[in-house]
Amino acid sequence: MATRKKEEPVILITNDDSIYAPGIKALTEAVMHLGRVVVVAPDKPQSGMGHAITIGHPLRLQKTVFVEGTEAYTCNGTPVDCVKLAVDKVLHRKPDICLSGINHGANHSINVIYSGTMSAAMEAAIESIPSIGFSLLDYSMEADFDPAKKIVEKITAKVLSQKKTPTHFLLNVNIPAVDEELIKGIKICKQAYAKYEEDFIERKDPHGRKYYWLTGEFVNFDKGKDTDVWALANNYVSVVPVQFDLTNYQLKEQLEKNWKF
Amino acid sequence: MATRKKEEPVILITNDDSIYAPGIKALTEAVMHLGRVVVVAPDKPQSGMGHAITIGHPLRLQKTVFVEGTEAYTCNGTPVDCVKLAVDKVLHRKPDICLSGINHGANHSINVIYSGTMSAAMEAAIESIPSIGFSLLDYSMEADFDPAKKIVEKITAKVLSQKKTPTHFLLNVNIPAVDEELIKGIKICKQAYAKYEEDFIERKDPHGRKYYWLTGEFVNFDKGKDTDVWALANNYVSVVPVQFDLTNYQLKEQLEKNWKF
Repeated sequence: MATRKKEEPVILITNDDSIYAPGIKALTEAVMHLGRVVVVAPDKPQSGMGHAITIGHPLRLQKTVFVEGTEAYTCNGTPVDCVKLAVDKVLHRKPDICLSGINHGANHSINVIYSGTMSAAMEAAIESIPSIGFSLLDYSMEADFDPAKKIVEKITAKVLSQKKTPTHFLLNVNIPAVDEELIKGIKICKQAYAKYEEDFIERKDPHGRKYYWLTGEFVNFDKGKDTDVWALANNYVSVVPVQFDLTNYQLKEQLEKNWKF
Repeated sequence: MATRKKEEPVILITNDDSIYAPGIKALTEAVMHLGRVVVVAPDKPQSGMGHAITIGHPLRLQKTVFVEGTEAYTCNGTPVDCVKLAVDKVLHRKPDICLSGINHGANHSINVIYSGTMSAAMEAAIESIPSIGFSLLDYSMEADFDPAKKIVEKITAKVLSQKKTPTHFLLNVNIPAVDEELIKGIKICKQAYAKYEEDFIERKDPHGRKYYWLTGEFVNFDKGKDTDVWALANNYVSVVPVQFDLTNYQLKEQLEKNWKF
């Protein structure tokens, strides 16, 4: 463990796969020499939770043993709850950066909206904390995070080295699941219009009542070479700068012109 | 009940407060003369669920009795699940419009991100179904939805009367909780940068262990007169056109220029 200077940055780490997922351990190991790492992560998997928050029941924090040299807590809430509680009840200040992940599975294109990993990062960005969500394109619990760790370290160091980051700085980073030597580089991209074409598998329970499992096939409708889906398919790491102003300004202008009530 | 023509539009209705909330009944009553209404709504409240989807357990649909002249189902999943299931397993086609709400409580500014109401509407828009989320600025279960119903009817009729709506057409409509004669009009707006300044109330359980309740005060950081928060504070109905491409194009340009790896 590197010697730590007093003015070292505070790095908040969270995820949506829970503190027991290999991805958050890989993320922590990748950046712990860059600052003081504090981990606040869900105590159970929270994939697909989107930007959910917990309002109907109380939240708890539990100090836990994690990677040596870090301070870590589990939380019974969502990824967004973790960030809120970390700032308010653990750090009692804003961290210098918030990192979320490394997610087991892609969060490119439309997935940014469903992703607990990205929602945690977005929550930090709303609070004006520079923030990055990292995802590896491998769902497996046995995924090889070694090439990803180098990418994570490089991008995090880059952000921490900036004298100033724009307010609400937020990146969505996806990493192809290939050997290190096959990764062609890091590419700044836009979010592709690509999504799952849903299908529900229909089954019957022992009492004859129907139930459904959500499933689907991923389809890319966006043929541009400037998208995250294109970059990943071509073995680039995709970096999409993300915002949370969802106003559709083009449609706003149209409606202002054409809609009279 | 108005006589229905064969070519009448199919109107899918959902919400996040559950099928038992007065708001979804008000929404249904407001628009049922405009087309064939099919309701698929959660069987329990799902506020603050954001864009959550259900992947870890099976989903069920249950036909139920609702407003006379409508077809209605409850679903054990999230608002987004309701839309997916409605299209795939109930309608077996895309509806002509999807309406979500009327939410009990505001979904202006940053709330669009946390809102189950807006996520259901967004899910439909992703599927290229014109879609509107409606919210009334009154949390109460006893809220007076009568003025809101007229607004809902007016805006829905407007959208249905268009020969063509842009792809991924999505509106976030918030309605002030005031008497009808006090409503000044309908205003096309941008999403304000306004949010909750979080605070957690700390308590101890009977065993001496701490727990937290999320709470907070709403603060508007956006002083413009073109925002939804401004419109609502001035008794206008706010209409924000919403998009789901979260790419921050300004930051993208900056990074492309300045970041070399």
